[in-house]
Amino acid sequence: MTRALNFNAGPATLPLPALELARDELLDFGGTGMSIMEHSHRGKDYEAVHHEASSLMRELAGVPDTHQILFVQGGASQLFAQIPMNFLPAGKSADYVVTGAWGEKAFAEAQVVGKMLAGTARLAATTGTGDGKDKSYVRVPTDPEIQRDPAAAYLHYTSNETIHGVEFHRIPEAGNVPLVCDASSDFMWRKVDMSRFALVYAGAQKNVGPSGIVVVVAHKDLVAQGRKDIPKIFQLRTVADNDSLYNTPPTFSIYLIRNVMRWVKAEGGLDAIEKRNRDKAKTLYDALDAHAGFYRAPVDKESRSVMNVVFRLPSEALEEQLLAEAKKRRMVGLKGHRSVGGMRVSLYNAVPLEWVSSLAELLGDFAKRNG
Amino acid sequence: MTRALNFNAGPATLPLPALELARDELLDFGGTGMSIMEHSHRGKDYEAVHHEASSLMRELAGVPDTHQILFVQGGASQLFAQIPMNFLPAGKSADYVVTGAWGEKAFAEAQVVGKMLAGTARLAATTGTGDGKDKSYVRVPTDPEIQRDPAAAYLHYTSNETIHGVEFHRIPEAGNVPLVCDASSDFMWRKVDMSRFALVYAGAQKNVGPSGIVVVVAHKDLVAQGRKDIPKIFQLRTVADNDSLYNTPPTFSIYLIRNVMRWVKAEGGLDAIEKRNRDKAKTLYDALDAHAGFYRAPVDKESRSVMNVVFRLPSEALEEQLLAEAKKRRMVGLKGHRSVGGMRVSLYNAVPLEWVSSLAELLGDFAKRNG
Repeated sequence: MTRALNFNAGPATLPLPALELARDELLDFGGTGMSIMEHSHRGKDYEAVHHEASSLMRELAGVPDTHQILFVQGGASQLFAQIPMNFLPAGKSADYVVTGAWGEKAFAEAQVVGKMLAGTARLAATTGTGDGKDKSYVRVPTDPEIQRDPAAAYLHYTSNETIHGVEFHRIPEAGNVPLVCDASSDFMWRKVDMSRFALVYAGAQKNVGPSGIVVVVAHKDLVAQGRKDIPKIFQLRTVADNDSLYNTPPTFSIYLIRNVMRWVKAEGGLDAIEKRNRDKAKTLYDALDAHAGFYRAPVDKESRSVMNVVFRLPSEALEEQLLAEAKKRRMVGLKGHRSVGGMRVSLYNAVPLEWVSSLAELLGDFAKRNG
Repeated sequence: MTRALNFNAGPATLPLPALELARDELLDFGGTGMSIMEHSHRGKDYEAVHHEASSLMRELAGVPDTHQILFVQGGASQLFAQIPMNFLPAGKSADYVVTGAWGEKAFAEAQVVGKMLAGTARLAATTGTGDGKDKSYVRVPTDPEIQRDPAAAYLHYTSNETIHGVEFHRIPEAGNVPLVCDASSDFMWRKVDMSRFALVYAGAQKNVGPSGIVVVVAHKDLVAQGRKDIPKIFQLRTVADNDSLYNTPPTFSIYLIRNVMRWVKAEGGLDAIEKRNRDKAKTLYDALDAHAGFYRAPVDKESRSVMNVVFRLPSEALEEQLLAEAKKRRMVGLKGHRSVGGMRVSLYNAVPLEWVSSLAELLGDFAKRNG
């Protein structure tokens, strides 16, 4: 098998050892004569997997004892609604910082929840310019640009915008307001001070596993304060009180998170992963900047994403040509999101530096031939 | 590998050919050099899988063109809330028929949603007797016992109660009221007249796939009438309008549904599957009835579940002894749900008749030795 050079934005490439282990154990997990998928979620074999996944994540990501790790279904898009349902009390307001398409969606759902449950979602900052199809985001706001409400129920932001390639390289100041972060596409690419957050959530399908599961890291105090007048299944309290086993979890997805966490540990943990990710991003941005007249990377340098690198070529015809040449080299996932076009290269943890070097080489060569 | 005789209630045993195909393709799906898990959910390779899963299901289950097949995350427990959120308008009432623990949960969540969104959930019938720990369900109600509200927004029932082993062997009369059915543990064990239902939903982890995905079969008219004042992610309209691809679906779970559907077709479709399931259930109930003084199968004969067979022994000590003897024969998943105790044997589609015959033999032998 020749492995594709997979730069997908998510579902994304997974570490080969995590997949190989899944294959080897698929029919017979630990000599039980059953796939891990066929085990009861209440049995000791699955429970060991469940706890290994979360305890390795706690260790590797540096999650303090004040916080719980929860496995939630529905995708990060469901959390857009579930977070205000839990943490926006009636008569209160929550602040939103919007730096791209995902922040827009989170804010829109919070507005619907606000109307439904007598709260308010308020735009504290946006860096969007233009309208509709031409709307663009090329930077994150400074702290003074965020018009915070000191009485807000929480402050929500998106640490990395997967579509627009805009990333926060600091944790924004939130004062005494609980800070809530959608870290779907930059969770666990490096170590961050998790104690600064009331809640962090992330769809697994970028750096930690397959699609179909969301990781939530939540301060116990926040969870305890959640609303109780919403359906039990949507209360994060329910997930927390039942160790993410209130109802049947997606057991195979959590098993794969375990395999990925084992790989992260074997690679040397997040310090080693971060170093490699920075090398990958530098390699790619350097290749683009070396031909800045040909490639246009629209994002301000200080807001450039280390995970999702977006850029344009002089014409759509050239973009198509580049995609075709990349395809011949077995490179996939380079097309920008259908809403914005252009090119996008995702550099999640499981993407090796060699793939990025090959792509950088192609980019340099392509610019020379067509520039 | 010696395969375990897996009678788990769900996640349940899967057809071996479905798992073998998953193993063989795990690292390299269709020569793409990527796992299906690593493919984009917007790419043509995954989309072919997505559509094969739903079109095979449509063909095998006999889903008419009036209905859509939706893949939803969150588990059937999430649908307990999501259904009234969608289909219980303000000022209206919905009817619930409760024949076991899952119906109780569905009704409880509907009551919460009712309070939240100005609707009412009403108990149209329950066959529960006793209270708390001693509460029992041993039958389904007759049609006259169901006190229907002819103006109800919908009538909800649970076609098979996994914990109590109580199953409807008819579709209850609903008049002109839309009929909504939680068929989690008896979906696709036989063909039913899907046109009778406004909506059927089922957690996949019994007869159609792994945990982490719910199949919803919904009449298009019902979906179109759903409330629009709830978060977009919870509107079934959103799932329907986006072909279950509004946000990233659990792609690997849907891939496994595809594999299971292929297996159902290869086995001869639901007619062949139904015949085998009836043989399995008869084999097991006959073994229990042959020693009716020793084994106590509490469910009324006409409400006995073909999927989940529950019974008790004269003492808990004997139950433990039987479990230990079964374990030596590599039989797993025979313990009753922790809320009710006793024994439970799940006979989902992927359980072969030979496993049931082996268990029946053990039951006969055990009764002779200990009766």
